[in-house]
Amino acid sequence: MSTFNELIIFIRKEVNRDLKRLPIPKRPVYLYEPIRFALSGNGKRFRPILVHLAGRANNADPESLMKIALAIELLHNFTLVHDDIMDNDNMRHGQAAVHSKWDESTAILAGDGINAIAQILLSGIPDRSNAICRFFNQATLEVCEGQALDKEFENDLSITEDQYLEMIEKKTGSLLGACSALSATLVGADQEVINHFDQFGRALGNGFQIHDDLLEIYGNPNEMGKSLGSDIAEGKQTMMVIKARNLFGKEWGEIIGDPNRIDFMDKIRSFFTENGIENETKGLAQTYFDLARNSLEKIDGINCSELFDFVNLVETRSY
Amino acid sequence: MSTFNELIIFIRKEVNRDLKRLPIPKRPVYLYEPIRFALSGNGKRFRPILVHLAGRANNADPESLMKIALAIELLHNFTLVHDDIMDNDNMRHGQAAVHSKWDESTAILAGDGINAIAQILLSGIPDRSNAICRFFNQATLEVCEGQALDKEFENDLSITEDQYLEMIEKKTGSLLGACSALSATLVGADQEVINHFDQFGRALGNGFQIHDDLLEIYGNPNEMGKSLGSDIAEGKQTMMVIKARNLFGKEWGEIIGDPNRIDFMDKIRSFFTENGIENETKGLAQTYFDLARNSLEKIDGINCSELFDFVNLVETRSY
Repeated sequence: MSTFNELIIFIRKEVNRDLKRLPIPKRPVYLYEPIRFALSGNGKRFRPILVHLAGRANNADPESLMKIALAIELLHNFTLVHDDIMDNDNMRHGQAAVHSKWDESTAILAGDGINAIAQILLSGIPDRSNAICRFFNQATLEVCEGQALDKEFENDLSITEDQYLEMIEKKTGSLLGACSALSATLVGADQEVINHFDQFGRALGNGFQIHDDLLEIYGNPNEMGKSLGSDIAEGKQTMMVIKARNLFGKEWGEIIGDPNRIDFMDKIRSFFTENGIENETKGLAQTYFDLARNSLEKIDGINCSELFDFVNLVETRSY
Repeated sequence: MSTFNELIIFIRKEVNRDLKRLPIPKRPVYLYEPIRFALSGNGKRFRPILVHLAGRANNADPESLMKIALAIELLHNFTLVHDDIMDNDNMRHGQAAVHSKWDESTAILAGDGINAIAQILLSGIPDRSNAICRFFNQATLEVCEGQALDKEFENDLSITEDQYLEMIEKKTGSLLGACSALSATLVGADQEVINHFDQFGRALGNGFQIHDDLLEIYGNPNEMGKSLGSDIAEGKQTMMVIKARNLFGKEWGEIIGDPNRIDFMDKIRSFFTENGIENETKGLAQTYFDLARNSLEKIDGINCSELFDFVNLVETRSY
């Protein structure tokens, strides 16, 4: 295993250890049991790992960095708990979603509590905490905007590729931008450098999401830990679906009209591949990963080699 | 009209003006239209008024004070929007609740967005913002704990007066404690002084809530802007209900068993009055208001006269 992969595993372990050490009370059970459950899920910890890698590049104080990393992971989990209610998703990371294990009220309150704990963590950072809190919560609001667009797009067959890209940048890119830029904010970097880190994270996030759309079709269901294509069967918009609908409306309508047929996924796969949609979408993800690298190249005097390695890792991930 | 009442009206106007001036974008409509709607409600602005009065006593910077006042009002509204979903309440301040005007997903996201805007406001305070953010979000978490207890207590007929008091202190008292103590934190007061302000607000909050329980039974429905007793008919626990159940189980069970009878409210009222429950509960509210005054008296060297006036106002309010 490469040194870089070992580093990633090490950071994930540290994050999981410190997540478990958060002083979450036992009572009221109604609030804290679902919170503990939500945080014990088998997440990839992709976002706090990015916080740590960007923080290493910025020579940031490790203790403050871990607070940011945990706050980001809590924020991510709070939005997942609430999004799963809104999107009626019953499974998350291979276990029941909070609202399906308990009920909607429990899940609403658990999400609110997780967010409050994230903010309390941030308030423990001694340096530049105002700028950090502002960046963090502007990203939170932008994630809410992304989720709002996602809800507006449901059942809207006129959505364009540009609208989809705006939505995923808000829903996924903005938070990865924060993961990447917050340590630059912490060390008091110039605004231009902070912006480059933000742009890097946003491009990486968009690439990540489009790559995710591809894995949802072409991934290995065993590695992914779920059955493939369920989002598409439920009418969710992805880059490939939008391309198919806008370029091949009639043929696509016939395929998507019968999601229960046994060879539904085979049909979808070969449709995307034969019509060049698979390659176009791979090319678009590639464009974003390259954009992420370009942003890193603009940052002078900082060793971003681990962030380049991270782009490679994300680009080639199979689950 | 007394000078103090004019001051209250003036502060309420200022708060409403600045709430309207918050730079809330137009799009995405799914997120921001419900947020604007929730904030346009006809609230009493009780909490931001308390922030300003305590801030005047503490000689706090007016600009930072208004940020705290608005953030507190936003926090309060975010919890109301979410609580109304959990409690299935369809009306709020004489207008439809967000989840009944739109739907639950919209209301979940609107609450999350309002909270993010509150945090962004707080991050604009130049002095001691870490301590302020910590206090603010610990209060938020405690409000969540109070709501959790409230949900745990539903349909639990073993709840005692002490458990009820713990619940309302978390759900209402903790936030009024923050309203009162945050300006002391802002000016860098000693921890002992901050604690007195916190205790003052908590006692005021408990008195306020018990007084509210009384108004729900003995208030003027025209002034209250709603029909009375609906909470009791739905089985909600209040101090009077708990006393009635624990002291006069059988008789109380007979009355509460038939909430649809036309003289239900008359029966309830005379039951509470004749059995001394009205007076006992009034005495308990009085005890908390006196406790609030005692906390103010412990604060040396600060002119708390407006806060004493405020206790009087809350104590005698009829809606």
